Amino acid sequence: MTADGQRTGGGQRTGGERDKTVGRDCSIAGALGVVGEKWSLLVLREVLLGERRFDQIARNTGASRDILAARLRGLVERGVLARRQYEQRPPRDEYVPTQAGRELAPILLALMDWGDRHVTEGPPPTRFEHDCGAELEPELACRHCHARVTAGSTRLLRLGSVG
Amino acid sequence: MTADGQRTGGGQRTGGERDKTVGRDCSIAGALGVVGEKWSLLVLREVLLGERRFDQIARNTGASRDILAARLRGLVERGVLARRQYEQRPPRDEYVPTQAGRELAPILLALMDWGDRHVTEGPPPTRFEHDCGAELEPELACRHCHARVTAGSTRLLRLGSVG
Repeated sequence: MTADGQRTGGGQRTGGERDKTVGRDCSIAGALGVVGEKWSLLVLREVLLGERRFDQIARNTGASRDILAARLRGLVERGVLARRQYEQRPPRDEYVPTQAGRELAPILLALMDWGDRHVTEGPPPTRFEHDCGAELEPELACRHCHARVTAGSTRLLRLGSVG
Repeated sequence: MTADGQRTGGGQRTGGERDKTVGRDCSIAGALGVVGEKWSLLVLREVLLGERRFDQIARNTGASRDILAARLRGLVERGVLARRQYEQRPPRDEYVPTQAGRELAPILLALMDWGDRHVTEGPPPTRFEHDCGAELEPELACRHCHARVTAGSTRLLRLGSVG
């Protein structure tokens, strides 16, 4: 489920867990160890929009070249992006999303929807159409009953312990 | 939609937009200006789990007291949390989610699900049951047709410009 040949530590996972040494045992903390930083998610936004190259990602995110280079390296190491050489002389790389990276697209769309409603002034800057033809209004749903999932519609079964 | 009496700049929005001066005009960037930092989302996780008090949030997130104080202040300023005094002598505050904060619960659940699948080794540390009785497996869905939303099931209608 992660990048070909870019796995860390020989496991199948993205390696975010290594950041988490204190606090609750929690997959949110694990996920944020991989993508819990503004520039990482903005880089992923651009790659999922189809931008593949350093200069264009830098321009479209506003990230400094140093920060961008570090974030791209981290996202490749953790299996969210894969690096491909598209030119040999001079050597030039481009970045493509892995399966794990593509599976973050719904999270970016949910963040966009929240930002549209709670942060952005005026109309949403970016709009998507869903396959069904409607303008996309995303919501988190239960895979079993398809009803909307909200803060109040879930009950804890098991909670990660605090180490 | 934001915290009572905690609005910034007189608007109805959370004020994350002020962070975004370069790059694409985008509600994801706006949202990340508010919650795009690991500790902010872990603080929100604890508050949504029902923890209200500084010491308990510090223990459960593993955040240092300095970072936690700064993140709580930021989340209150931006309308994601509200502060309430629960004791007068000595003065003691607790933190509760606003409507905007509660509407981040689905994003945390989606991050948890991604972390369960791509980061955490072994079984998920935390599990929820949905109202329907099934163990929660969340997915982003289209509010109109209720089909799952993936990276490949949407088409751009309008894209925020790069300033």
